[in-house]
Amino acid sequence: MTGFVPSGFRLAGVRCGIKSDPTRNDLTLIVTDEPCVAAGVYTRNLIYAAPVAVDRARTPSSRIRAVVANSGNANACTGQRGLQDALDMARCGAAVCGAAEDQALVLSTGIIGEFLPMAKIRQGIEEAARQLGSDEAAFVSAARGIITTDRSHKVAHRAVDVGNRTIRIAGMAKGAGMIGPNMATLLGIVLTDAPLTADAAQSLLQEAADASFNCISVEGHMSTNDTLLLLASGGAGGQPLADTERALFADALREMCIELARTIPNDGEGASHLITIDVRGCATGAAARKIAQTVANSALVKTAVAGADPNWGRIVSAAGYAQVPFDPLGVTLHVNGQLLYERGEPVGFDAEAVSQSMRSERETRIELSFAEGDAAIRFWTSDLTVDYVKINADYHT
Amino acid sequence: MTGFVPSGFRLAGVRCGIKSDPTRNDLTLIVTDEPCVAAGVYTRNLIYAAPVAVDRARTPSSRIRAVVANSGNANACTGQRGLQDALDMARCGAAVCGAAEDQALVLSTGIIGEFLPMAKIRQGIEEAARQLGSDEAAFVSAARGIITTDRSHKVAHRAVDVGNRTIRIAGMAKGAGMIGPNMATLLGIVLTDAPLTADAAQSLLQEAADASFNCISVEGHMSTNDTLLLLASGGAGGQPLADTERALFADALREMCIELARTIPNDGEGASHLITIDVRGCATGAAARKIAQTVANSALVKTAVAGADPNWGRIVSAAGYAQVPFDPLGVTLHVNGQLLYERGEPVGFDAEAVSQSMRSERETRIELSFAEGDAAIRFWTSDLTVDYVKINADYHT
Repeated sequence: MTGFVPSGFRLAGVRCGIKSDPTRNDLTLIVTDEPCVAAGVYTRNLIYAAPVAVDRARTPSSRIRAVVANSGNANACTGQRGLQDALDMARCGAAVCGAAEDQALVLSTGIIGEFLPMAKIRQGIEEAARQLGSDEAAFVSAARGIITTDRSHKVAHRAVDVGNRTIRIAGMAKGAGMIGPNMATLLGIVLTDAPLTADAAQSLLQEAADASFNCISVEGHMSTNDTLLLLASGGAGGQPLADTERALFADALREMCIELARTIPNDGEGASHLITIDVRGCATGAAARKIAQTVANSALVKTAVAGADPNWGRIVSAAGYAQVPFDPLGVTLHVNGQLLYERGEPVGFDAEAVSQSMRSERETRIELSFAEGDAAIRFWTSDLTVDYVKINADYHT
Repeated sequence: MTGFVPSGFRLAGVRCGIKSDPTRNDLTLIVTDEPCVAAGVYTRNLIYAAPVAVDRARTPSSRIRAVVANSGNANACTGQRGLQDALDMARCGAAVCGAAEDQALVLSTGIIGEFLPMAKIRQGIEEAARQLGSDEAAFVSAARGIITTDRSHKVAHRAVDVGNRTIRIAGMAKGAGMIGPNMATLLGIVLTDAPLTADAAQSLLQEAADASFNCISVEGHMSTNDTLLLLASGGAGGQPLADTERALFADALREMCIELARTIPNDGEGASHLITIDVRGCATGAAARKIAQTVANSALVKTAVAGADPNWGRIVSAAGYAQVPFDPLGVTLHVNGQLLYERGEPVGFDAEAVSQSMRSERETRIELSFAEGDAAIRFWTSDLTVDYVKINADYHT
């Protein structure tokens, strides 16, 4: 292990020529020296990409040796040939570390409906195999290999002491558009040296995703390629985590995933604000999620935040059409800590002061509370700006 | 009856000073000489405005005499005082035509969370009562009294021969933003001189709304104030419509409502395209509606149309997250009549020609077909432009 990188992994990011920009990486390879545990959480879109089909069939697993990811081409809506390409990409990744062909996972992101340039991908995998490293620079280079319209690479890491072991967790993610649970055109790869069983890895990852990557949106458009992987090498040593140890690890994993997930709407296409939405007092977690997501995906709420307008009417009316029953007289709203609406009625407030806080702070905090129960959720989204429209009206197929 | 206006109604639109612009009407009064049948379809938002509460309790009815509508103030989120104001507004409308106070209906649209300026409203109702007319100019003036950010007033009409009677139907509507089923910040008032029972009026209106006003969106934000009323004076004479006559009337009512409903996304805030979405081959009507609505509300689909980009990946992936099961290999897509995607796979097409047709035509036609059954729906929405964001980021509470 070097720096924040968990032990047992070697990584590289290289440029193989999928993207036209010669300064940008577009292929990432991660290999393990020993077979490792792998878990995955995937898009629920019925139109899912070939790499999702491959990984879904191969996880959870306790014998993965390699992950290959590319950016610039999603290998989505590419039919049988796309599936063969994804399998071939996995085969090449397995081959460079001497593994069996089904011991590799694949991720793709980028344009939909074009076939992967397989010659470039094969060359890229071989080049990456020559550059593998286990230091922080290698991790960042790998993180740069998966981004598309992101303004920068996205990484987060944690170290947690569990008994006499220090366990490391390090994650990379990409995503700036076509982001809406579950999941996003989000690729995320989390590495840890914790000793975990495959089943434990799967449930820990799902739990962390539900509090992080499944609580973000940019415009709410669920992608074809969303993939979040957890690889556990066991390199920290010792037996699989016991229950109390596992709780410590789960907290660290969840917090790291939240840190990483927040970077996505914060870097949302054209975004001038990160919007954090706290929904509390709901009957169930599912109800809280539905309300938060409906508010997050309201174009009128998002444009109001872009315009630094504390427009509580748009926020409470969005909650009202979330198709979740609640007592309207139990609704209370704060924006940036200021009370705007209390138990179903607007209250007098200093609109200019709230607007000023929205203008001066990158993050706008919306807190909606209900009188239905104790369930709560925290959700993050981007505002909707003129630049979002320009980026997406000008991005051509 | 004069021109297209059904017999039995007198109308006026006036300016009473709710809006700041001195050239714009903001109050509409409609009265009937005899008690008439009235039906209503309303927002399903849990946060609904005071006038919705009043009308919902009073329809269907066979004894309505007056409708009062105002624009510039929604009387929403205004609590008990708002409810009293709505009742008072109805009382004033009833008083000017000598009716009992509960024989009037009220509609409001505009800013949320401010109390109605009741002195202006009372004066406006009295002024409107002096200007009542039954000609086309009076109808247009009334239609101008309910608009807000609309670029122009919206009217449509039909005449249908039923037996030896000519029945007239004339509708007015408003709406350009906060539009998403069911219904929209949409106010719609449809007048007819058909003889109908209250129950028949209610089911005819619901059926027409389901094929028209409940098939439109601008940004998908369901409003607090959506109200569609049907008033039937019976002025065409004769007995209530028999079954075969009723079918003729239902067709005319539905077609007129569709004509009127389409004008709303076509006039959507900042819209440069009307998008018509045909979804066919679904297992149920509800499934077709859910898919159409999900495609209609995708910011990525809407920005692609704004950019004249035949981005089929965004369209089919939006269908894929509509939470409706379907076979991905049964999906076929046409845009402006051109085949882009067939049975789950992209097909070669002349992207420049399709883009050119999207640039040159106001309407973009998206046709999605599935292999699940025979259910179909037609849905309309706006594209998402830089101007939409500017309008809504600059509209202040």
